[in-house]
Amino acid sequence: MAFHLLERDRDGAREIAEALRVAIDTVKRCRRCNTFSETPLCSICESPRRDASLLCIVETPADLESVENASVYQGMYFVLMGHLSPLDGIGPDDLGFDRLDKLLNSESVQEVIVATNLTVEGEATAEYLHQLLEHKNIKATRLARGVPVGGELEYMDQGTLTQAFEGRRAL
Amino acid sequence: MAFHLLERDRDGAREIAEALRVAIDTVKRCRRCNTFSETPLCSICESPRRDASLLCIVETPADLESVENASVYQGMYFVLMGHLSPLDGIGPDDLGFDRLDKLLNSESVQEVIVATNLTVEGEATAEYLHQLLEHKNIKATRLARGVPVGGELEYMDQGTLTQAFEGRRAL
Repeated sequence: MAFHLLERDRDGAREIAEALRVAIDTVKRCRRCNTFSETPLCSICESPRRDASLLCIVETPADLESVENASVYQGMYFVLMGHLSPLDGIGPDDLGFDRLDKLLNSESVQEVIVATNLTVEGEATAEYLHQLLEHKNIKATRLARGVPVGGELEYMDQGTLTQAFEGRRAL
Repeated sequence: MAFHLLERDRDGAREIAEALRVAIDTVKRCRRCNTFSETPLCSICESPRRDASLLCIVETPADLESVENASVYQGMYFVLMGHLSPLDGIGPDDLGFDRLDKLLNSESVQEVIVATNLTVEGEATAEYLHQLLEHKNIKATRLARGVPVGGELEYMDQGTLTQAFEGRRAL
């Protein structure tokens, strides 16, 4: 991309550089959910149409966008900005768990949907959140695991097949 | 592969040709579950250690192998050898639904796990099987849909995310 811009589109490169400079200065964090936002409260936290009894915890703003694009969820979010990763020195203190704790104490959340990734780090983070939520009498749920849409058994890994069988549901 | 064999490994090609010829003559279908087998009954149908109260319906012998490799399932199988596909002229009569019907009438199956693929054709086949099973008072289940092991929300399609949210479970 750098070569393309330098070879053929130096004006475009100047625009990108300027846009990036503006973004660095203007994009901050939402003070409630922690996602990227140009205003103190992001558009989701500010919206009166979102269901405040549901809180979805995701790892990154990109995950939040992904869920929003699916149009399946109408509740609120909390963005961890990462996952537990002891090898990289990222512990609970780096993921804003204290802010999450305050948020859960001050708002009337009835269900927390733990939507961290289904990677090793995401699962470890989910387990940690599970312990945090157990003490609060708040219903905690986890995204369904199984075969994705369009998935063919022949090409599924053993772990996914195991979860798909163990989590099978009445037709 | 053909070029490689002709260029460098004509003896290997002769072996493959012979193996294929033998396979064509000796590999037939299991008379109970319909999968490939060199004996009238395949090793799974013959095994006394399998749970005969569970029947898993898959599309192909490759799907069966995939499930076996996951070591999560100890019941019996029925292999459709395909899926409903009206455009290709494949209807219920081509998938051995009559054999499946007889098998369900003659054996004491308590749960049928519909493990067709999560593709459009696989889902249509599952729906057809669902109607077939409704009349028989047999519990019918479907593989769990959701995020596969190792899956990251950012890269999930909207359909999978929708199913992952709708199928979420208590932590």
